[in-house]
Amino acid sequence: MIVGAGFGGLSATTALAHAACDVTVIDRHNYHLFQPLLYQVATAGLPPSDIAWPIRSILHRQRNAVVLLGEVVGVDVGAHRVRLRDREIAFDYLIVAAGATHAYFGHDDWRPHAPGLKSVDDATQIRRRILTAFEAAEMEQDPERRARLLRFAIVGAGPTGVELAGTIAELARFTLAADFRRIDPRSAKVMLVEAGPRVLATFAQRQSQYAQRALEKLGVEVRVNSAVTACDAEGITIGGERVSTATVLWAAGVAAAPVGAWLGAATDRAGRVKVGPDLAVSTDPAIFVIGDSALVETAAGRVPGVAPAAKQQGRYVAAVIARRLLAQPAPPPFEYRNAGNFATIGRARAVIEFPFLTLRGWLAWWFWGVAHIYFLLGVPSPLMVSLRWLWEYLTYGRGARLITGAEDAD
Amino acid sequence: MIVGAGFGGLSATTALAHAACDVTVIDRHNYHLFQPLLYQVATAGLPPSDIAWPIRSILHRQRNAVVLLGEVVGVDVGAHRVRLRDREIAFDYLIVAAGATHAYFGHDDWRPHAPGLKSVDDATQIRRRILTAFEAAEMEQDPERRARLLRFAIVGAGPTGVELAGTIAELARFTLAADFRRIDPRSAKVMLVEAGPRVLATFAQRQSQYAQRALEKLGVEVRVNSAVTACDAEGITIGGERVSTATVLWAAGVAAAPVGAWLGAATDRAGRVKVGPDLAVSTDPAIFVIGDSALVETAAGRVPGVAPAAKQQGRYVAAVIARRLLAQPAPPPFEYRNAGNFATIGRARAVIEFPFLTLRGWLAWWFWGVAHIYFLLGVPSPLMVSLRWLWEYLTYGRGARLITGAEDAD
Repeated sequence: MIVGAGFGGLSATTALAHAACDVTVIDRHNYHLFQPLLYQVATAGLPPSDIAWPIRSILHRQRNAVVLLGEVVGVDVGAHRVRLRDREIAFDYLIVAAGATHAYFGHDDWRPHAPGLKSVDDATQIRRRILTAFEAAEMEQDPERRARLLRFAIVGAGPTGVELAGTIAELARFTLAADFRRIDPRSAKVMLVEAGPRVLATFAQRQSQYAQRALEKLGVEVRVNSAVTACDAEGITIGGERVSTATVLWAAGVAAAPVGAWLGAATDRAGRVKVGPDLAVSTDPAIFVIGDSALVETAAGRVPGVAPAAKQQGRYVAAVIARRLLAQPAPPPFEYRNAGNFATIGRARAVIEFPFLTLRGWLAWWFWGVAHIYFLLGVPSPLMVSLRWLWEYLTYGRGARLITGAEDAD
Repeated sequence: MIVGAGFGGLSATTALAHAACDVTVIDRHNYHLFQPLLYQVATAGLPPSDIAWPIRSILHRQRNAVVLLGEVVGVDVGAHRVRLRDREIAFDYLIVAAGATHAYFGHDDWRPHAPGLKSVDDATQIRRRILTAFEAAEMEQDPERRARLLRFAIVGAGPTGVELAGTIAELARFTLAADFRRIDPRSAKVMLVEAGPRVLATFAQRQSQYAQRALEKLGVEVRVNSAVTACDAEGITIGGERVSTATVLWAAGVAAAPVGAWLGAATDRAGRVKVGPDLAVSTDPAIFVIGDSALVETAAGRVPGVAPAAKQQGRYVAAVIARRLLAQPAPPPFEYRNAGNFATIGRARAVIEFPFLTLRGWLAWWFWGVAHIYFLLGVPSPLMVSLRWLWEYLTYGRGARLITGAEDAD
């Protein structure tokens, strides 16, 4: 039984294709989401269906896999049963790959004012807010209220925050520049607010400096050492300073899914479950936690919460289970192979860190693009996505600028 | 001032590009929707952004056009002002092209149980309901409830109803066939219910017979002379017979936008405003109504509510206004040039009626496809849409099978 069809859950599933077992995959959504490109949906560059594919169609050739659409609400650890909203399902082995969501550090009342970016619905909501702000500004007569509508604050300067800030700045400066008559979209202000001392804190200092300069060239105002102390419908407060803005996006914190509570297992402060060297929980060798839900410490240090790590863990746990089913000895403890660390800053600017190589600028961006096309090769119609990228790169277009859904649907 | 950026409003706007006037276009949405392909979104064949484009980007080169996102709630005819929710805007000439919505013949309580197909949000809601029904069936143990989930009823056998029924049948028989483990999607039942004596009533008898046979070959149960007398959360009643179904789609009736009430003008029973030979209302020569909002009687008969008619009317009214601004004589009364009538029945089956030519079958389907690509040429990235079509045609794929949005967002 595998809970979650993200990078971790899906790689575990496919790695078990030839094992002597049946695999049941449960997810709240009917699609696998390619999260590294979710910011492209939020900024109207790609339609959701270019980065999300039905789990069923990905697995339809794997005859030992059953896909169920359902929401897990708990686990009966003693009886080896997973609890869904309306039923329970028994398992022999359980792999929990339930991912993470955004966290507001105890300020859950900020949530409606500052949406985060984790799901397709998050992304279309953010897209709606960004586009609606420009539309409302075009209608607004009062200069102050218009300036507020054209101010965008992104909280948190990790890869997602940097990508959002850069892409929104480009949207305003290039894509929308000629589309309005009463406002000049190029006058929009994009502010990236970071509590820590630099952007892209997981990268080396030089990459942070490069990213900040690249953002500033795009007109983004980067505020480091600036913790947000209040957030409401009118704007945000940074230290003592009030910033009046209609659009606040949250890219600051993640919290693991409530897996610790389901399993009665110890977690760290972000809710990640502590697992052993074989990624099983300490209380039950048949229950594994992987990906963003897990806190994995190896000899080389703590494993980061990135897609390649989740995939490696999925394959590893599949091997552990497959060997146990054949009564073979367990593999050596999990080790993370660093697959590199990257972030893009809009069109043709990116930073990439491999263990022995660092790239910045347009070369990094193209490398990033080609690598993503390669990652996409496992999914339906990578050609379509690639063509669309190329098209939008060449035309500065953002083809998915639709305001859909009702605001009260949030 | 032009209300509505559908086929009529947009063609009037572009036809006024070189007239000595400013044009303001107001629409509730920020996109122009290519409605003839909306059923492809509802059945997961295309993502919304392939058939909807920002009005601003379509008009961004037309310097005399201003686009406003807003909802018209009335017209002050005497003062020549349009009322939006939060302001009023003055006009010299007004073109109302507000389109139509679906109608329930006085049974508005059926609306939540039987969504219609007029907007992008309608389409994604229908897509969610269809896909969710298959997912719920896979989880369902009880054979009767499972059969109910796998039964789909489409009410109304005009082009939209025929297209939906054919495409859902194909989705079940081909696209989803291998994706489930506990149910066989091919056992799904699609029922097309029509109160009148035949499907595609606006076509000649032979085309109706062909379409019905083609649907039946796809496994669709066609019920003509069958009026729906009740509709609730459990299913529909046809005459005395109860049909238990989880998914009812409404393609039976349209009603014009409430333009008659805005203008204090006489309408027919479907709410269409009666206009004169120059498409102006009888009470004010500076106010025109076109497209699905208008009832236009010409020497050749009543003009049908189709996209080519709306486009012709938009161009005609633009010419009337442009000439009046130049103090030139008015053009002769509006005449509708029949551009043909078509409907598709799934993959590679269609009927087309031109004044002097009728096509049926795969030749009609390809003709329809090529013609649509031609119609799309005026919009951004027709190449992308065409490639996607070809891809899905060749692979039987439906690439946009995402369940998004919350059910309570309806």
